[in-house]
Amino acid sequence: MSSTFGTLFKVSTFGESHCKGVGVVVDGCPAAMELTEADIQPQLSRRRPGQSSLSTPRSEADQVCIYSGTEFGKTLGTPIMLLVHNRDQRPQDYGEMSRIPRPSHADYSYQMKYGIRASSGGGRSSARETIGRVAAGAIADKWLRSTFGVEIVAWVSAVGEISAPDIDRHSISRAEVDAHIVRCPHAATAARMQQLVEEVLAAKDSTGGVISCVCRNVPLGLGEPVFDKLEAKLAQAMLSLPATKGFDIGSGFAGTSLRGSQHNDPFIPKGQVLSTRSNNSGGVQGGISNGEDIYFRVAFKPVATIGLPQETVDFAGNSTILEAKGRHDPCVVPRAVPIVESMAALVLMDLALRQQAHRPF
Amino acid sequence: MSSTFGTLFKVSTFGESHCKGVGVVVDGCPAAMELTEADIQPQLSRRRPGQSSLSTPRSEADQVCIYSGTEFGKTLGTPIMLLVHNRDQRPQDYGEMSRIPRPSHADYSYQMKYGIRASSGGGRSSARETIGRVAAGAIADKWLRSTFGVEIVAWVSAVGEISAPDIDRHSISRAEVDAHIVRCPHAATAARMQQLVEEVLAAKDSTGGVISCVCRNVPLGLGEPVFDKLEAKLAQAMLSLPATKGFDIGSGFAGTSLRGSQHNDPFIPKGQVLSTRSNNSGGVQGGISNGEDIYFRVAFKPVATIGLPQETVDFAGNSTILEAKGRHDPCVVPRAVPIVESMAALVLMDLALRQQAHRPF
Amino acid sequence: MSSTFGTLFKVSTFGESHCKGVGVVVDGCPAAMELTEADIQPQLSRRRPGQSSLSTPRSEADQVCIYSGTEFGKTLGTPIMLLVHNRDQRPQDYGEMSRIPRPSHADYSYQMKYGIRASSGGGRSSARETIGRVAAGAIADKWLRSTFGVEIVAWVSAVGEISAPDIDRHSISRAEVDAHIVRCPHAATAARMQQLVEEVLAAKDSTGGVISCVCRNVPLGLGEPVFDKLEAKLAQAMLSLPATKGFDIGSGFAGTSLRGSQHNDPFIPKGQVLSTRSNNSGGVQGGISNGEDIYFRVAFKPVATIGLPQETVDFAGNSTILEAKGRHDPCVVPRAVPIVESMAALVLMDLALRQQAHRPF
Amino acid sequence: MSSTFGTLFKVSTFGESHCKGVGVVVDGCPAAMELTEADIQPQLSRRRPGQSSLSTPRSEADQVCIYSGTEFGKTLGTPIMLLVHNRDQRPQDYGEMSRIPRPSHADYSYQMKYGIRASSGGGRSSARETIGRVAAGAIADKWLRSTFGVEIVAWVSAVGEISAPDIDRHSISRAEVDAHIVRCPHAATAARMQQLVEEVLAAKDSTGGVISCVCRNVPLGLGEPVFDKLEAKLAQAMLSLPATKGFDIGSGFAGTSLRGSQHNDPFIPKGQVLSTRSNNSGGVQGGISNGEDIYFRVAFKPVATIGLPQETVDFAGNSTILEAKGRHDPCVVPRAVPIVESMAALVLMDLALRQQAHRPF
Repeated sequence: MSSTFGTLFKVSTFGESHCKGVGVVVDGCPAAMELTEADIQPQLSRRRPGQSSLSTPRSEADQVCIYSGTEFGKTLGTPIMLLVHNRDQRPQDYGEMSRIPRPSHADYSYQMKYGIRASSGGGRSSARETIGRVAAGAIADKWLRSTFGVEIVAWVSAVGEISAPDIDRHSISRAEVDAHIVRCPHAATAARMQQLVEEVLAAKDSTGGVISCVCRNVPLGLGEPVFDKLEAKLAQAMLSLPATKGFDIGSGFAGTSLRGSQHNDPFIPKGQVLSTRSNNSGGVQGGISNGEDIYFRVAFKPVATIGLPQETVDFAGNSTILEAKGRHDPCVVPRAVPIVESMAALVLMDLALRQQAHRPF
Repeated sequence: MSSTFGTLFKVSTFGESHCKGVGVVVDGCPAAMELTEADIQPQLSRRRPGQSSLSTPRSEADQVCIYSGTEFGKTLGTPIMLLVHNRDQRPQDYGEMSRIPRPSHADYSYQMKYGIRASSGGGRSSARETIGRVAAGAIADKWLRSTFGVEIVAWVSAVGEISAPDIDRHSISRAEVDAHIVRCPHAATAARMQQLVEEVLAAKDSTGGVISCVCRNVPLGLGEPVFDKLEAKLAQAMLSLPATKGFDIGSGFAGTSLRGSQHNDPFIPKGQVLSTRSNNSGGVQGGISNGEDIYFRVAFKPVATIGLPQETVDFAGNSTILEAKGRHDPCVVPRAVPIVESMAALVLMDLALRQQAHRPF
Repeated sequence: MSSTFGTLFKVSTFGESHCKGVGVVVDGCPAAMELTEADIQPQLSRRRPGQSSLSTPRSEADQVCIYSGTEFGKTLGTPIMLLVHNRDQRPQDYGEMSRIPRPSHADYSYQMKYGIRASSGGGRSSARETIGRVAAGAIADKWLRSTFGVEIVAWVSAVGEISAPDIDRHSISRAEVDAHIVRCPHAATAARMQQLVEEVLAAKDSTGGVISCVCRNVPLGLGEPVFDKLEAKLAQAMLSLPATKGFDIGSGFAGTSLRGSQHNDPFIPKGQVLSTRSNNSGGVQGGISNGEDIYFRVAFKPVATIGLPQETVDFAGNSTILEAKGRHDPCVVPRAVPIVESMAALVLMDLALRQQAHRPF
Repeated sequence: MSSTFGTLFKVSTFGESHCKGVGVVVDGCPAAMELTEADIQPQLSRRRPGQSSLSTPRSEADQVCIYSGTEFGKTLGTPIMLLVHNRDQRPQDYGEMSRIPRPSHADYSYQMKYGIRASSGGGRSSARETIGRVAAGAIADKWLRSTFGVEIVAWVSAVGEISAPDIDRHSISRAEVDAHIVRCPHAATAARMQQLVEEVLAAKDSTGGVISCVCRNVPLGLGEPVFDKLEAKLAQAMLSLPATKGFDIGSGFAGTSLRGSQHNDPFIPKGQVLSTRSNNSGGVQGGISNGEDIYFRVAFKPVATIGLPQETVDFAGNSTILEAKGRHDPCVVPRAVPIVESMAALVLMDLALRQQAHRPF
């Protein structure tokens, strides 16, 4: 296990389904910042299950509580522990699911790595693990916003084979994203995506999708070459999320087919600094933010747990048919939107503090 | 700067163009392993400039020397320092290139981050920085091969708009890759790619490309959820390379349009353990290797330094035209093949030692 | 703040006086180990206040609860969060103590470092911070004992000017230590120490002391030269405890006056390995455990908070007299015994896992 | 091995006796600082062997060379590699010393930990390992001096049973220390110490000693509770040095016998901040520098390699007599003075950057 992330803004997450609680310890948050549960709850509520008809009906309130690190509504500079109690804490016998590793799920690899696994299906590989990330990310998000005016907005840009047209990265807001339960801000596309998710749900199947994200007003100079370049840390952060299979930034995979003369972003003056005419770089050059919008995409595979019968084998290697019970989201991307934003915030805040160490803003 | 990578197999790289040398300190290599320069030089020679007509004519021998950590051809368990002397050590006045930040290069962001930058163009953002990675990666590669039979093979799967058809991941070898100077193992595609690179070179332009990589015989259980999942560390490693813009693993971005019932990899028995019928997971489930082939792709943008005139501004914001002098590779992917392999080896070896710590193989 | 300790057995502590709770996240504990609260509570109870007449009458139950990382009484390999609720959670106005920094306490340096401090006196510099360390240490202690038979026993070897005669390191047990409330296992000395503490308490003063500790049956080979030598990590661990001012190991400061011919520990055979005739090295040579008993001493200064009037100044620099209110231990060493043991366990377990990574036992 | 130290100012040392070279990679040095070999050589020359009649006659020039990270005499913000070539690079057969582990030396524990060891006696446990520390420390020393006016001065306060009287910490300079070859600034004591070292040398024996160190003008606020408190990192740094057995700070072990009313340091006004009337705290309260002088002591055991015959056993357990050949310092403390200063500088600089990250000076 490696559940600690960050060099100076360091988060240590804990908790799995069916234990007493999930949460995070945030160490390295600047002191004297105003912080209460009200700063954290909104993003947690955006990620909680049961918030729309597209999500599992398992409704959890996911109320966060600050256990340490603040007093009279201000941070003390000491570790902040954030805890969300699990409603259902009873580990159960999951019947055949404990006998049969779910295809493309972590049941088998956890069992082989640890020699044991949470009986309750998922454990630390469950999406519930991301609660600590989102709680910590909300703190980073607030700090980045109040310190630099950073705005981080993610949205669903593809569900299955349905892709949204280009969204205006300069203006898109969380409110516009949340206007559609599928969290795609393009209304017509959102409607089609919603229909697809409902079809997939009815078919006891699942589908993948893509989340896009933009970070605006990021100060120039963030990113620590060579191994902690900004895009490297973003890539690690995103690929550490459950169900992710890809990450690209700026022109990404599509840009590989271009010529340098098409792809390069010429400089133009912008007040005392330089800006660029185009932004194929995605706001990063040489691993360092250049003051332009940072934007990237994250690929999510179809949810592994499906109700359709699957021919597979049990742990002993005997052929069997698995029909997963229980309710699972048929598509994770709508709920993953705040999770992607949170991981971006964790990366940016840690790099901002590291830059501040060497060259105060 | 953050030039140290790895938790237990820890590499610290150093050096830029036009200083005395470039290299790496490798800390945490197991003791009593046979190691001489002959184990390291081949991969360095595969990445050196001037090895083919597609690469810059700036030919450097890039001879590696082991300065510490071995005796009588065996590792001592102590830090191994590997040094490659730079042939041309004179920092120079690069003329207009020191006055004009190259579009989409790191000149501007380095200057703004550090308040200074190497005059000689590139400095630590130069591809020369990767020598230390490759030298260290060769050690990891040898250890993984001799300990587990791990085979890591990368190849060029796209140059510009030309993509190779599917390569047989189970059998592809470095020799087959090196049979074509463009390092695409599909002969007909390689010829077209080579032609494209030559055209681009003649046009004083550049092009991007994609590298694919497979890691075979990786033991089950590598990867440390949640933040150091195998795919997360691979993503960080690859996006820390110069000119990279994307990473995906297994089905990657393409898999996001599938249904779970299509995408899931059903289990089948394989001796004492389980295998999977398909491998859309790319050898990783829940962030942990499952014993199947690990395969992934890395996107490289077109080289930023081109000879074509570019309308841009100088550091002071004055409009100007930049025509980059000097010889630069028009496409980095052929030489980047051993670099991608090396980063994969660094990731796998570190995770193998970490797994060994908790549960000896 | 830096509240995370360890490379592979990583603990992240949190909490201060008067917040909701204190505790720790333990990441990297081997899976499938039996673990319940009953394994952790005994050491916590040995450190809690109010356990004897020598300690503050502020009695807290300090009941620990496992929030994550175990199921059916076994560890899952996932982060273990241990929480102790604070009984009194109301931050209060501490009156003049919030206006006057206590001499030799952390009030002033915290205020200057963070620009804020816990109003309630102490905050993260309070001894209450050590609860997370002890809870985590109890896990390490159990693992070391069950894996290698390691026995870690600390005791009070000095209170003020009263020093205990040499204790037999080979046999001393926690039960013998706990037979005297001052936790010095030499009865006559313990009686004198107890009398001294009572006198100091009556005088509204405080006193310092020394704790000695032995670690038996530590496997050969622990310690990672050069910066994480065994004695270096022990020194860091002990000097990170509140009120500590010194650490020495083996012959320590006294050994500096000896000749090499007196001080060297000649080797003698012991079964398949070597032992040493004397043990001035304290079980460590070259930063690596040599299989002999590890023993060391930790110096604790007199408690800073005393009831006697002190001439000092307030935060604004105005002369004043401070007479600290409230009840405070007049001497910390009896309660610090399990804390020293816990820190030793954290160091040894982390180094054992690191050694296992490179060379399985 | 763990040869990397520091969070933001990160040094990675390498090299042992009889390999090609020893040195260090310094990552995280602020950019645009003036730096040439002339800044580094003086401290290296103070630690080199053969500088006085008290040291081994093996004279090595130990010329340092900057291989990377600077250009035109200024740091680039990139990793700085510093290399000292070893004069004698031939690993040799050390005869009986390779058959017989030296008592209280690292021969045996290295062999058992790694399954191999440098034939040439010492390897990474040799004092030669400290060259990289001193070279890196010289950079930190310069930065601390030029940024804050920090002055770090160490001296020999005891050799064997001879202790120096109190030295005026407020004024002592490196020049005064170097006025005596034994590096004790008290002339009469220095003479007696020198005589003792000469007697011990003549007797083919060795002796231990104590080094004291003061750090003046350290800014208020350095130190990261709880695990990276200032005194904890100093303790780790000092106990990571070869031959060290103890560390104490401020009143140290002696202060444990005092009462709180004697030991506490009352505050007094000093301009805009507070000072303390006494300084038993040694400049640290709650793990954080308080602006007063930081002072501490380090205990060094007698050198293990002595010419006197020692009854011991060989690696196979057979009884034998060892009479070490070659020339070794009979007392390490004179040459260890710059090493202690260097480690203090590494600790302070790293903590200064970390403090700067959260709260710019």
